[in-house]
Amino acid sequence: MAAAPVWSVDPRTGKQREQVAVEATAQEVDQAVRAARAAAGALADRTVRAAFLRSAAELLDASKDHLVEAADAETALGPVRLTGELARTSYQLRAFADIVDEGAFLGVVIDHPDDSATPPIPDLRRYKVPLGVVAVYSASNFPFAFSVPGGDTASALAAGCPVVVKAHPDHPATSELVASVLRRAAAQHGIPEGVLGLVHGFEAGVELVKHPLVSAAGFTGSVRGGRALFDAAAARPVPIPFHGELGSLNPVVITAEAVAERAEQIGAGLAGSMTLGTGQFCVKPGLVFAPVGADGDRLVKSLTDAVSDTEAGVLLDHRMRDNFVAGVAERAALPDVDAPVTPGAGSEHTVSPGFLTVPAQRLATDGGHDLLLEECFGPVTVVARYEDDAEVTAVLSRLPGNLSATVHLSAGEAAGQGRGAEILAELTPLAGRVLVNGWPTGVAVAPAQHHGGPYPATTSTSTSVGGTAVERWLRPVAYQNTPEALLPPELRDDNPLGLPRRYEGRQEL
Amino acid sequence: MAAAPVWSVDPRTGKQREQVAVEATAQEVDQAVRAARAAAGALADRTVRAAFLRSAAELLDASKDHLVEAADAETALGPVRLTGELARTSYQLRAFADIVDEGAFLGVVIDHPDDSATPPIPDLRRYKVPLGVVAVYSASNFPFAFSVPGGDTASALAAGCPVVVKAHPDHPATSELVASVLRRAAAQHGIPEGVLGLVHGFEAGVELVKHPLVSAAGFTGSVRGGRALFDAAAARPVPIPFHGELGSLNPVVITAEAVAERAEQIGAGLAGSMTLGTGQFCVKPGLVFAPVGADGDRLVKSLTDAVSDTEAGVLLDHRMRDNFVAGVAERAALPDVDAPVTPGAGSEHTVSPGFLTVPAQRLATDGGHDLLLEECFGPVTVVARYEDDAEVTAVLSRLPGNLSATVHLSAGEAAGQGRGAEILAELTPLAGRVLVNGWPTGVAVAPAQHHGGPYPATTSTSTSVGGTAVERWLRPVAYQNTPEALLPPELRDDNPLGLPRRYEGRQEL
Repeated sequence: MAAAPVWSVDPRTGKQREQVAVEATAQEVDQAVRAARAAAGALADRTVRAAFLRSAAELLDASKDHLVEAADAETALGPVRLTGELARTSYQLRAFADIVDEGAFLGVVIDHPDDSATPPIPDLRRYKVPLGVVAVYSASNFPFAFSVPGGDTASALAAGCPVVVKAHPDHPATSELVASVLRRAAAQHGIPEGVLGLVHGFEAGVELVKHPLVSAAGFTGSVRGGRALFDAAAARPVPIPFHGELGSLNPVVITAEAVAERAEQIGAGLAGSMTLGTGQFCVKPGLVFAPVGADGDRLVKSLTDAVSDTEAGVLLDHRMRDNFVAGVAERAALPDVDAPVTPGAGSEHTVSPGFLTVPAQRLATDGGHDLLLEECFGPVTVVARYEDDAEVTAVLSRLPGNLSATVHLSAGEAAGQGRGAEILAELTPLAGRVLVNGWPTGVAVAPAQHHGGPYPATTSTSTSVGGTAVERWLRPVAYQNTPEALLPPELRDDNPLGLPRRYEGRQEL
Repeated sequence: MAAAPVWSVDPRTGKQREQVAVEATAQEVDQAVRAARAAAGALADRTVRAAFLRSAAELLDASKDHLVEAADAETALGPVRLTGELARTSYQLRAFADIVDEGAFLGVVIDHPDDSATPPIPDLRRYKVPLGVVAVYSASNFPFAFSVPGGDTASALAAGCPVVVKAHPDHPATSELVASVLRRAAAQHGIPEGVLGLVHGFEAGVELVKHPLVSAAGFTGSVRGGRALFDAAAARPVPIPFHGELGSLNPVVITAEAVAERAEQIGAGLAGSMTLGTGQFCVKPGLVFAPVGADGDRLVKSLTDAVSDTEAGVLLDHRMRDNFVAGVAERAALPDVDAPVTPGAGSEHTVSPGFLTVPAQRLATDGGHDLLLEECFGPVTVVARYEDDAEVTAVLSRLPGNLSATVHLSAGEAAGQGRGAEILAELTPLAGRVLVNGWPTGVAVAPAQHHGGPYPATTSTSTSVGGTAVERWLRPVAYQNTPEALLPPELRDDNPLGLPRRYEGRQEL
């Protein structure tokens, strides 16, 4: 049987651009994993690792024009967005290099013997070691930042884990280009090219998560695809951690006071956030609570104006376009649902942004409207008009987990008068990131970031963005009564590497 | 249908002592989980939590004689061991109270806005919040330290999570007694008794891990039972973290130099470790590599003498006794396997300790001896006699994950001459704790402890002993641009609670 070809497709026309590769066979997946495994030793030295990450950032920056052009041709995300995304990606690689240098992620803890403890404590020294080969499943909507050179790859390499990436079919040519850039960076530091494997094809992705030498996986994508891979990871003879970011509705609560204060500003802000990148963000606000009444009407009016002024856009592929058109039509057909601006098909290859409204009461119980509580990928949001706070509480209590939850408060509420704290307490159980008076699109790369949340937002309690993303690819090992001469330098009393650590119960910087 | 009775059984006679309870129905499991959930709010205040844990320790200590007597009657572990285990358990509760007070486990990270980042960083403040109700599955072999008041319960309560314990059928009466002590401690601090639920019965355990309001689970037990519950946790509509400690062979490598130096001492030490608690420890050394030749023979001789002198003992229940007797017989019957001291049935209710020897070469490939690489619960170990280091390496490469891995080195090797570092590097991938010149039995409660390891040692990368066990029951939440007035006190700039934190990129004590 001939290997299935992998085509790069132009979503602006639906036409095949070029054949990039063929889908990987099980044998080729095995080869990629073994090559990655063989490269692990070359990542053991953290100085080399950090230098590799910085070289990768430099080479990506140097290839910017070429990479952005390639990615735009396959994704239609546009050069401005893609240039920004690439800058974010190289920033992220450098941020992880800094994390590697600092070494706090090693979690060094040293306890000396203590006979007064029950039972007595021997000499114990703990730090974290890399898990092994990591499988990374690229996202459709971020050809750089959540794909081959993205956060999963950067954090895994920072942890000392080689990576095999399963390319997303929406940008195979970009994936190949970027992989070759990363391999050039590796070669500059004597790291075998196998440290960054790349495979194409749905079946190859399934083979990858089942491979005995794969020790963990990172995924960004749909609930359906992510859950299938999660299930496969859990069903292995030796289960492995599967850190998947699957789906999120990203609820936004707008208080009556906030909308009274600045309905137009909030409506315009919402329009910008929900249509950004043609609505193809996992943190797109997909369910917005606005009060009934005149102030809420002003918000809807301003949202209507802004969304009406937003041009139709091209989605990442035609399957997504079909799903969007069908999904919004099905939602709009539900009883009591209105579409002040109808989302749906634009021209042959585009979709038009829009939004739906529904009485919040309709969502407070399972009355046939639960489809509105599922993510719809693309430029659409649902505005739930509420009569009182109890309705908001009732609907929130029915939501699955989210990456983000947002509240817009009045100046007084933000200053602590009124229900602000109460709403934050209601939103915290729902999400991994809680925002006040902002929009969830835009996820900063920062130590305090948390991009994750209760299932299905993520399949673990981890984050895929920010410094602590590195923790996903490590496991602790404790050494007991091990002579100084045999300890790794990270665990020696004299701290030759100058690592931050917890030493005899006290934190040392 | 009448509810199935739960009996307390005396393993020294096999006779039922008393009916303790009945097995919980699905409805009763639901009630326990809902009661636990309702108690979560009472754990929100960390001062209350720490005081509760300390009161629990005090009340357990005060009930020592009664509890030890009850546990001994059901487990035959003996008053000395059980008194020590109870002391360890209350020490552990106090250690987690200290951890709650310190607050480092909250992982507070505060980043102020930084427009120079790509993309710009907003005000972001992250800390960890409790996951919710935790299901704890008690171990057979530790009626206190890994059961109702054990490490899983203590760490979950420390994290702010109410607990529902599934009692182990080997000590239902002790479980009920201890639960009532913990509830009395809760009541002293105004915490509802539901904070510590207790259910009996196999089916109840399955219901528990599937309950929609259960957010995570901790387990200590067999590979078979643990894997079944792990699978159920992963198959839920909303999967939950399942931290299970399932099984471990705990390999020990004795170098030729070490055995030349102190064969008798090592043989006697091994006998003590493998027969401790009648071999019923998850860290019992189950596979020991000793060189062929005269020095190795001396080790085997000393092991023979010491094990021959060790009395028969009572296992925790008769099913375990049957499994032990059958398991050692099956192993001893393999070709080339000798039994210098034959393990097996003692009197009607006891088992005799013993050990087997086998040429290491037999284990280096799948030649029908792989049963020897599976844990056999009880007082038996396997001594693999090796011709050269390559044989040891070959067998180690075939082992599943372990809680511990040990090496005995000569003085010179411990000082860095010879293969010490190389062997440590071979053992590290196999286990969560690596020991030099010691025995794995005895797991200290300490910040640097790691009691876990690659599957099947544990089903996650976490530990069930030591300070970091608390991390299993938390998830991070980041607050973005949240006004000071609405932030939890843990995340305020002025740090009113005096928490250790990472503030603008620097660690603050």
